[in-house]
Amino acid sequence: MREQFPFFKANPDLVYLDSAATSQKPQVVLDALQNYYVNDNANVHRGLYRLAYNTTEAYEGVRAQVAKYLHAKRPEEITFTRSTTDGLNLVASSFGPTVVQPGDEILVSGAEHHSNFIPWQQLAHRTGATFVVAPVKPDGDTDVDQLAKLITNKTKILAVAQVTNVSGGLVDVRPLADKVHANGGYIVVDGAQAVPHMPVDVQAIDADFYSFSGHKVYGPTGIGALYGRYQFFEAMPPIQYGGEMIDEVQDQVSTWAEVPLKFEAGTPNIAGVFGLGAALDFMSQLDLKQMMQAENTLVKSLRAELSTIDGIILYGSDASLSTVSFNLTGVHPHDLATFLDEQDVAVRAGHHCAQPLMARLGIPATARASFGIYNTQADVDKLVAAVRAAGGYFHGTN
Amino acid sequence: MREQFPFFKANPDLVYLDSAATSQKPQVVLDALQNYYVNDNANVHRGLYRLAYNTTEAYEGVRAQVAKYLHAKRPEEITFTRSTTDGLNLVASSFGPTVVQPGDEILVSGAEHHSNFIPWQQLAHRTGATFVVAPVKPDGDTDVDQLAKLITNKTKILAVAQVTNVSGGLVDVRPLADKVHANGGYIVVDGAQAVPHMPVDVQAIDADFYSFSGHKVYGPTGIGALYGRYQFFEAMPPIQYGGEMIDEVQDQVSTWAEVPLKFEAGTPNIAGVFGLGAALDFMSQLDLKQMMQAENTLVKSLRAELSTIDGIILYGSDASLSTVSFNLTGVHPHDLATFLDEQDVAVRAGHHCAQPLMARLGIPATARASFGIYNTQADVDKLVAAVRAAGGYFHGTN
Repeated sequence: MREQFPFFKANPDLVYLDSAATSQKPQVVLDALQNYYVNDNANVHRGLYRLAYNTTEAYEGVRAQVAKYLHAKRPEEITFTRSTTDGLNLVASSFGPTVVQPGDEILVSGAEHHSNFIPWQQLAHRTGATFVVAPVKPDGDTDVDQLAKLITNKTKILAVAQVTNVSGGLVDVRPLADKVHANGGYIVVDGAQAVPHMPVDVQAIDADFYSFSGHKVYGPTGIGALYGRYQFFEAMPPIQYGGEMIDEVQDQVSTWAEVPLKFEAGTPNIAGVFGLGAALDFMSQLDLKQMMQAENTLVKSLRAELSTIDGIILYGSDASLSTVSFNLTGVHPHDLATFLDEQDVAVRAGHHCAQPLMARLGIPATARASFGIYNTQADVDKLVAAVRAAGGYFHGTN
Repeated sequence: MREQFPFFKANPDLVYLDSAATSQKPQVVLDALQNYYVNDNANVHRGLYRLAYNTTEAYEGVRAQVAKYLHAKRPEEITFTRSTTDGLNLVASSFGPTVVQPGDEILVSGAEHHSNFIPWQQLAHRTGATFVVAPVKPDGDTDVDQLAKLITNKTKILAVAQVTNVSGGLVDVRPLADKVHANGGYIVVDGAQAVPHMPVDVQAIDADFYSFSGHKVYGPTGIGALYGRYQFFEAMPPIQYGGEMIDEVQDQVSTWAEVPLKFEAGTPNIAGVFGLGAALDFMSQLDLKQMMQAENTLVKSLRAELSTIDGIILYGSDASLSTVSFNLTGVHPHDLATFLDEQDVAVRAGHHCAQPLMARLGIPATARASFGIYNTQADVDKLVAAVRAAGGYFHGTN
C-alpha cells in the first residue's frame, strides 16, 4: 500500500500521523491531475469543441461516481464544493433561512468541528432561532443519547459529524435522523472524517445533507462534494452568482440553471474533480470493511501502548475509527508535538477546530494521532517510543 | 515558449484559441503541484511539526508574492479564493450590504461577465438599491464615457472589468475610480481577463477590490485571489465559518481571526496556491509589455485577415488585448465553432456568460478566439483558413 504513495518515498523517515488534517495522495491521484492538465485541459460546460465536450462529459462522470460512492439516488444530488466547510456553509446559508424561523431550535453536539458548529450558531443569530449545544461524553465522544433527548418539534436542523475529528468516534446517525424527521426537522451530516475511513450510504443513514472533502480521502486540496436531497437542492436559492449557474440574465432579473449547476458559479476546480474521481476509484478498489478493521486495530494498539506510559490521558474510546487524542500530564500538547516532531513523528496538537469540545473537557488542547491507509504497527511503535521519551524528557520518568 | 507547455506536445495538431475560458499550463506549474503533493503535503495553519510549518510558510509566501504581483501594499490585502467569481461574490455578500442602502445605486457596464453582473443585481434586490446598467459601445466594448456619466453621489459601488471577456477591450479604470471615489463610492474590478495579459497595479488604478483567477493566468483550476484594501477587509464580516478563521468559539458567540484568514474558512486549495505561485513566477520572468504587444499583434492580424471574408462581423476593436469575437452572417456561431473544431481549431461560441451584452448587440452569441502566450501567427492563419472554409461550406462562397 505504502509504495503507492510517493510522499513516503520522498519522506522515508517521517512517521505521518496527521491524516485527519490531510491525507497523503496515491500516485493514481497525481496522475489524474497531470493527465487532465497535459492531455485534456479545457473549461467545462462552455465549449463546443471536442476537447471541451469530452472534458465536460468526464467531469459529469465524476459527479455520477460520487453519487454512486455515497449511494445517492442520482448525480444531481451532488454539488461540487471547495471543501466540507464550503458544503456545510452552503447548506446553512441557502437551505437554513428557508426552514428556520424565530423560536425554532438548531441542535448540534458539543463535539462538533467549528465548520459544523459556527455556521449553525450564526444561522441561529440571523434567524432568531435558539442554538442548542448538546453535552458530550466524558471522553469527548458525541453523546448520541443526549442529542436524541434534545430533539423536539422545535428542532429544525440537527447538525452532526458521522465521525468526530478529535476522538474519532463513530456516531450512529440513523436513529438521530429518524427522530429529527419524525419531529419535522432536517439532519445535516459532516462526513469529513467518515468518508476516508468507512463505507458511507446517505440513504441508509437518511441524511438530508452530507458534506465531505477530497483532500482527506486521498484526493487533492480545494475540492469537496455536498450531497443533498434532490427536492431540497431544487428549492434552495443559489448563494453565488456567475457563469454557468444561470438560465437567463436580463438587466434586472435573472433565473437560475437546474441543480446542481445552480450552485457551481464560475469555473470549478476541474482538475480537483478529476483528482477526487481518481481518489474514489482508489477507495473503490479497497475492501473498506477490512480497511476499517485494520485502522481500528492500530487505534486499539496505540491506546493500549500509550496507556502504559505514566501520566497519559486518552480521549475517545477503543471504538475510534482512526484517531487517538491524548495528553501527557504536565506537558503542553504543543511542546509534546514539537518534541515528537524532533523524532520525525508528525502529530497534530491544538484545539483541532473544536474549542467547544475543549471547553467541555476542561483542557486547552490535545495531541492527536490520526491514521490513514498507509500507516502500520511500526508507526504506532515509533509514536509510542517517542511519547515515552517525551515523558522521560519532560518528567524525568519512564 | 510553446515547448514549455506539455499540452501542446500531447495535442500537436490542435489550434487552441480558448485561453479566455482557461489557459494551458507550463511545466513549472505542473511541477509545483507535484512537488507539493510528493514532498511537502501537509495542512496549513494547523500543524506544529516542521513539514506543516514549512508548508504554511510557503503558503503565506505565495500570498506575499500575489500582493507584490498586483502591487498591493501588504500581503494581508490578498485573500485566496476559488476563482474570480468567488472573490466578486465575497465582496458583494460581505462588503456590499455594509455600504449599500435603499435608494443607493449600484452601477455596472452592460459589457460585464455574469460574475461581475449578477452579484450586484442581486445585491441591489436585497438592499433596495437601484441597479444601473450602462450602455456599451456599438462594437461591444465597455463605454467608459457613459459609465463615467452615470456616476453620481448615489453610486455606492461601480463594478467593472479591466478587460472584457467578449470584445477583449481594455478599460482605463483610474478615471472611473477617481470619479466614484470623489462621489463617496467604491470600485470593484474584475481582473480575470486582465491579469493574464498585462501588468496590473491595483494602487495605480486605485481599485478598492480586484479579483482574478489562477487558471486563466497559466495556473491551476480552483484557485483565485481577491485584493481588497486592508481597512475594508478588516471591517468586513466573514461569510463562511469553520476552521482557521476564528479567534475564539464559545457556545453562543464566536470572534474572528485577523484578515485575511477571516475569509479562508476550512482547508484551502493548498496545492492550488503553490500552482498559482509558480504561474506568477512564470509571468514575472516575462517582459509583460512585450507579451501584450505580441498578443495584440495577433489580434490585429486576425482581425485584418478575417475582415477579408464575406459576411464576417467583428466585435471589439484592434486595441483588444487578446480576444476577437466574430460572427459569420447566416451561420449560427455554434455551427461555426463545430465546423472549426472539425478542422482542429478550438474556439468558443456562445453568449460567453454575457447575456446582457448579447442583448445589447442584438445577437444570441458570437464565436470567440482568444490568445495565450503560446499562440502564434500560424494559429491565426489556420483559424482564418478554417473560417474561410466554413464560409464556403455554409454559403458556397469564399
